[in-house]
Amino acid sequence: CLAYRLLLPKQAQPGVSRASQGRRQLLSRASVAALSVGAGAGTLGLVRGYLTNYTSYDGTKTYSRNNITSPITPNNEHYVVTQNVVDPAPNTDLWRLEVTGLVNTPGTYTYAEVQKLPSTSRAITLECIANGTGDHLLSTAIWQGVTLRTLLEHHGGPQAGARYAAFYSVDGYNVSLPLDELLALDALLAWRMNGAELPQRHGFPMRVLAPGHYGEENPKWLTRVELTDHFVGGLYSDQGWYNGPLHTISRIDRPRGHVPFGQAIEVGGIAFAGNRGIQKVEVSADKGLTWHQATLQPPLSQDSWVLWTWQWSPALPGAYQLTCRATDGTGETQTSHMQGTVPKGATGYHVVNTQVG
Amino acid sequence: CLAYRLLLPKQAQPGVSRASQGRRQLLSRASVAALSVGAGAGTLGLVRGYLTNYTSYDGTKTYSRNNITSPITPNNEHYVVTQNVVDPAPNTDLWRLEVTGLVNTPGTYTYAEVQKLPSTSRAITLECIANGTGDHLLSTAIWQGVTLRTLLEHHGGPQAGARYAAFYSVDGYNVSLPLDELLALDALLAWRMNGAELPQRHGFPMRVLAPGHYGEENPKWLTRVELTDHFVGGLYSDQGWYNGPLHTISRIDRPRGHVPFGQAIEVGGIAFAGNRGIQKVEVSADKGLTWHQATLQPPLSQDSWVLWTWQWSPALPGAYQLTCRATDGTGETQTSHMQGTVPKGATGYHVVNTQVG
Repeated sequence: CLAYRLLLPKQAQPGVSRASQGRRQLLSRASVAALSVGAGAGTLGLVRGYLTNYTSYDGTKTYSRNNITSPITPNNEHYVVTQNVVDPAPNTDLWRLEVTGLVNTPGTYTYAEVQKLPSTSRAITLECIANGTGDHLLSTAIWQGVTLRTLLEHHGGPQAGARYAAFYSVDGYNVSLPLDELLALDALLAWRMNGAELPQRHGFPMRVLAPGHYGEENPKWLTRVELTDHFVGGLYSDQGWYNGPLHTISRIDRPRGHVPFGQAIEVGGIAFAGNRGIQKVEVSADKGLTWHQATLQPPLSQDSWVLWTWQWSPALPGAYQLTCRATDGTGETQTSHMQGTVPKGATGYHVVNTQVG
Repeated sequence: CLAYRLLLPKQAQPGVSRASQGRRQLLSRASVAALSVGAGAGTLGLVRGYLTNYTSYDGTKTYSRNNITSPITPNNEHYVVTQNVVDPAPNTDLWRLEVTGLVNTPGTYTYAEVQKLPSTSRAITLECIANGTGDHLLSTAIWQGVTLRTLLEHHGGPQAGARYAAFYSVDGYNVSLPLDELLALDALLAWRMNGAELPQRHGFPMRVLAPGHYGEENPKWLTRVELTDHFVGGLYSDQGWYNGPLHTISRIDRPRGHVPFGQAIEVGGIAFAGNRGIQKVEVSADKGLTWHQATLQPPLSQDSWVLWTWQWSPALPGAYQLTCRATDGTGETQTSHMQGTVPKGATGYHVVNTQVG
């Protein structure tokens, strides 16, 4: 259990004093940890100890059944990563969604009122920034909710000068993203996941989906949307984690282990490039000397991973290395440069060893 | 290509004259067939010929990849059955949803107005009444739309005396179902399917989901909801097709063919009982002498199929017959009575032959 998020020194953000950042973070973390260790100023040392030992980016991963990845991941198999020792379980009698800051007519909603907002649904793939090459900290669900654009229209739209949206969660977690970008990628505030009520560990009663951004910028347990004229910071970005557009990745799910010689072998997996889409996936069975174009399944949305297959007929038995690479919708091919997850998100080709015959 | 729907004599419905039924059906069919063969009274004989030869319950089936059925079927793999030679492709500039009849404040909606209705999403499995035992004319999707209950509330609710809801489609198709039952099963009028705009062949711009009823009572291309004090009839029910609650079924998806001896064999498949849910699935490897309880995956909703598995370790190599049976949420086990699809829906156990070793 690695405490990735505490590995990095905090970085100051323009316009925000380090002192106020530190205080806010500590208070917000304390309010969560207090659930399990008791509240009060005297316990802060203990709280810090708890967080260092028990919070991490290690998440519950999603493995595909029989090495076939399903276009949609069922809720109980969707990967989970959390910053909390104990996740919040908001009481919907008390919970409110607040829309505030540089918006023309601020307001709040009860959970019942949220259900009456015009909503839409979309398949969106989430990937954790700690998802290593070929790893399984990513999943796809169909999220139903109100788009940020529609919500803001209900409040008379942003005021002149609104440049960022800051999202605040019940557990004190916060994220700040450029408003223009959120509107362009049609960010969603969702209360249903794969046709069911949002599960507690996925952010009940409401969460943010910011397609094209790593999971950490898709906060759960949302309680406040605030339009601001400056970058407010966020738990992970404050610590120096990369928060740009996610990297293009591809993964080989099958074959695994030993495969008989003399029959066509289906090579298959997934590719993902956030909201940029996938244009092409190629597979090499000779360590990158030659590349073969895979067949892509139509994705469920622009923001969803793409499933791919390639029929391989090796000429001889032997030990092989299979490698794949994806090209995103802008025509850019994923980099072969190997880079670990900390602090910028993993890059590099996924390689799988296979014995044929 | 079998024209099942024309195999049966039409049956008179109480309160509706046979003459008016016949005329309505013929006109509605003609209006569709006219798309491909030209309109006019003189072409009716030709139209009938077309329908007899080219319309049927044969549909596009959904097979599971690698014998693993996915909890959710992607839109392009969802089974399709249609009554039409050419399916309608409504123009949303002209299309309207009309809410009329015994409702307190009738009204209409444009496609843009429909999007603004409060909506919900739910996994619902659809099964064609022509789905044979162990067959693949059933699929599951997440449907987003307004519930009939919420829609009627927007119109001041039903008037005293409203006992049925009749659904009319762009292609002249119609269905009539008891209002109480539709409200109890929380029928949905949907405009999104698995997070995407409803595809044309699945009823764009709007379709009905009546959980627990065979696909034919879940009309596509909806354009009018009318509350009535009597049963209005419907294209298939008028012809004598069964229209009660769908039968409990179960299917074995794997293993297939020859399986090596000496290792545990995963037996798996699906079970479905409409909105009654599945309580138990059992598998027999000795023609029903002994039954073993399968492990059920949690279903995505009460209206969704259930995926099941059973780990089988046969004591000896040899030829086996695997059989499964499901028990629905009310405690009733599916009948072993073999019955074909026409006209009451198939029943009976699914049997699969397997050679071990």
